[in-house]
Amino acid sequence: MATFDYDLFVIGGGSGGVRSARLAASMGKKVAIAEEFRFGGTCVIRGCVPKKLYVYASQFREHFEDAAGFGWQVGETSFDWQALIAAKEKEITRLEGLYRKGLDNAGATILATRAVLVGPNTIRLTATDELVTAERILIAVGGHPTPHPGLPGFDLCISSNEAFDLPALPKAILIAGGGYIAVEFANIFHGLGVETTLIYRGKQILSRFDQDMRQGLQSAMVAKGIRVICEDIIMNVSETEDGRRSVITKAGETLTVDQVMLALGRVPNTGSLGLETAGVATNEKGAIIVDAFSRTNVESIFALGDVTDRVQLTPVAIHEAMCFIETEFHGNPVSPDHDMIATAVFSQPEIGTVGMSEEEAAKAFDDLEIYRAEFRPMKATLSGRQEKTIMKLVVNAADRKVLGAHILGHDAGEMAQLLGISLKAGVTKDDFDRTMAVHPTASEELVTMYQPSYRVRGGQRV
Amino acid sequence: MATFDYDLFVIGGGSGGVRSARLAASMGKKVAIAEEFRFGGTCVIRGCVPKKLYVYASQFREHFEDAAGFGWQVGETSFDWQALIAAKEKEITRLEGLYRKGLDNAGATILATRAVLVGPNTIRLTATDELVTAERILIAVGGHPTPHPGLPGFDLCISSNEAFDLPALPKAILIAGGGYIAVEFANIFHGLGVETTLIYRGKQILSRFDQDMRQGLQSAMVAKGIRVICEDIIMNVSETEDGRRSVITKAGETLTVDQVMLALGRVPNTGSLGLETAGVATNEKGAIIVDAFSRTNVESIFALGDVTDRVQLTPVAIHEAMCFIETEFHGNPVSPDHDMIATAVFSQPEIGTVGMSEEEAAKAFDDLEIYRAEFRPMKATLSGRQEKTIMKLVVNAADRKVLGAHILGHDAGEMAQLLGISLKAGVTKDDFDRTMAVHPTASEELVTMYQPSYRVRGGQRV
Repeated sequence: MATFDYDLFVIGGGSGGVRSARLAASMGKKVAIAEEFRFGGTCVIRGCVPKKLYVYASQFREHFEDAAGFGWQVGETSFDWQALIAAKEKEITRLEGLYRKGLDNAGATILATRAVLVGPNTIRLTATDELVTAERILIAVGGHPTPHPGLPGFDLCISSNEAFDLPALPKAILIAGGGYIAVEFANIFHGLGVETTLIYRGKQILSRFDQDMRQGLQSAMVAKGIRVICEDIIMNVSETEDGRRSVITKAGETLTVDQVMLALGRVPNTGSLGLETAGVATNEKGAIIVDAFSRTNVESIFALGDVTDRVQLTPVAIHEAMCFIETEFHGNPVSPDHDMIATAVFSQPEIGTVGMSEEEAAKAFDDLEIYRAEFRPMKATLSGRQEKTIMKLVVNAADRKVLGAHILGHDAGEMAQLLGISLKAGVTKDDFDRTMAVHPTASEELVTMYQPSYRVRGGQRV
Repeated sequence: MATFDYDLFVIGGGSGGVRSARLAASMGKKVAIAEEFRFGGTCVIRGCVPKKLYVYASQFREHFEDAAGFGWQVGETSFDWQALIAAKEKEITRLEGLYRKGLDNAGATILATRAVLVGPNTIRLTATDELVTAERILIAVGGHPTPHPGLPGFDLCISSNEAFDLPALPKAILIAGGGYIAVEFANIFHGLGVETTLIYRGKQILSRFDQDMRQGLQSAMVAKGIRVICEDIIMNVSETEDGRRSVITKAGETLTVDQVMLALGRVPNTGSLGLETAGVATNEKGAIIVDAFSRTNVESIFALGDVTDRVQLTPVAIHEAMCFIETEFHGNPVSPDHDMIATAVFSQPEIGTVGMSEEEAAKAFDDLEIYRAEFRPMKATLSGRQEKTIMKLVVNAADRKVLGAHILGHDAGEMAQLLGISLKAGVTKDDFDRTMAVHPTASEELVTMYQPSYRVRGGQRV
């Protein structure tokens, strides 16, 4: 029987890789994990974590404004972009340390190097050119924003990777894209005082979300001063004499801004990884093809997280990691459950959503009850802020099962998490109706909508 | 067959009374509703609504402080108490108008008078001394803070009724009581810059809540500068020469403050209501005794809401009202469901809770799994605020049913509302475990606590 340097070699120190390495090492397995950049992956280093910190930062402007309605006078305020970057950096460095410490404590070997496949059980560490072997190899290298090289001037643009650490806060920014990353950054930059424009090829932002969420958020963004250009795209980016960016759109508009951020999708980090050498199959997008147990076509090689392009979310990668360990090291085959995943868009207002949109449900079920409330949040009555909270339940009339829940408003992300428990458990609208309200809250609306706002039969609103 | 002036006469224009009157009138019933003060009841006029508005007002100080960690500089701030009162007053007047409009639109007769019983079907309107008759009479007159007349100097003290409209914001306040009203006001006044002391006879605030919530909140309050005196009570209140209040406690301490607020419980508004004349029975606390259908011992007289001292919460009164209408006017007997009611304490941090505390559950079940997380909220990592969020699930080991969920932290009230749906539906810990996390949120902790923190067997922690 062949012997290997490691029982498990993990390539990539993001959420999925670290969890896998830590769990396997805790069991006494011989584990190595290679990361060429910083531990924590997209989530910790240039995704969820810094994003949410910047969201908090960008919300203070509204707090300052809202205070007046409650009797507060606030002196002049100013914002220091470099101070925010430094504070963010300190925090993600702390988190990175926790990731390393967790691996260390579990007994995993940490390798600060890029690692590439040279065979089904062999990896080359590029820092030292060393070859190591492992019984199982896990690829968890994640993805990166597409640079969109087809766009003339693409190299003058930034992506979400750079957005957190710009040398100066732009006075004006153009963000291309209509997905959650584009939308979140548009709200962050606007909140920090940047003149913000979003350009998106579709008819409305957030294409796969419930229509009410799309419409509600886009209206809210426009109302607070973000310019949203739909059904148009960037054709050319060039540098102006004073170092700004001049953008020409397909519709013929010219915009001059300080930064252009492309948020046009993410692609798997499968380039120069040795996949072909090792014989690992990828799909047309470059994502590694895996089965229900995160197995690639090569028996000893596994992949999970964003590089597999299933559901690109941190908790999903972690869940896939736990299933992988359970399956491969505990002899208990468990395949990841990708059904009914609650998610949040940390826009302002937030979106929290779980289950089917009305549009999806209308295709899948004959008869729907739609419960919908739109109201001014209580705080807005005194702040005078013109914003609306929207809450919506999509219910299958046949069995009263709640198919989808969608919220636009403060704390929608927290709400989606907890609604996720109910919907995953398969509760019915009757369970909602039986629940006593908590007053005064926003979410009490969700348990006091006794009559459907309308029905959808055979795909038609009636 | 006797004829009456009204099918239904409602005494009291609070949440339960208004809902009952509006629903019955909408059905075409002849309905009158008498209110001597303002429509909306405790909740709208001097309870939940102004309370939550003042909570918002009191949170801005923390927002201003937190901003620094995110790169913001905030100039000098000041607070105008009268401006807050005026803004609050405008909002509750608007809500009061909505209540009246709802009644008007439904066709109910609104009577601006105190109404007292003179018989099983007869009411005297004190404003005009007129007698009117009704087939059914509903008493929904609510309650009021106990004035505690046994305390020497009680008439120098205020209650929550006066607290919202004090002519000036006190520099120092002493609040007596350990229930949610005392605790909420202590946090409000502290947030508005008042030197705040809470005095409570018990060992720790919030006696019937889960121990972790009590401990966690009390520690948080003390840490931010609220003085909490436990196991002591006020023995005497007197006025000082300069119009302040001098307080002597049982332990022998003397405190001098600008206001003393008593929050020592609430009593039903059953005095001089003609209950004896009409033969309506009350209990030793003065609350009207009702059966499971809100019926008093007099066939034609019903009572609901705080005056019945079942569960003193707005949504409960509304629920009781809906059950009353369904039972009496739709011929469909439905008794109110008082089980598994989620509630919130709008302290800072908030408490949100549903179901059994660990202590209650330990008495009722042999074997419990306790899942408990204590962590710094993400925002605090940059604000530097030393606060902890606590999340706790109490699970019956025998069937994995979640018996109780308790949260101390931001948005705990919203979370309790949505956890309430799950717990009311009887979900298990396995349902929590199957739910994918939403990252980064606080509530994702609730679905990622895979191993019990400890167990409680036979009432003992093991």
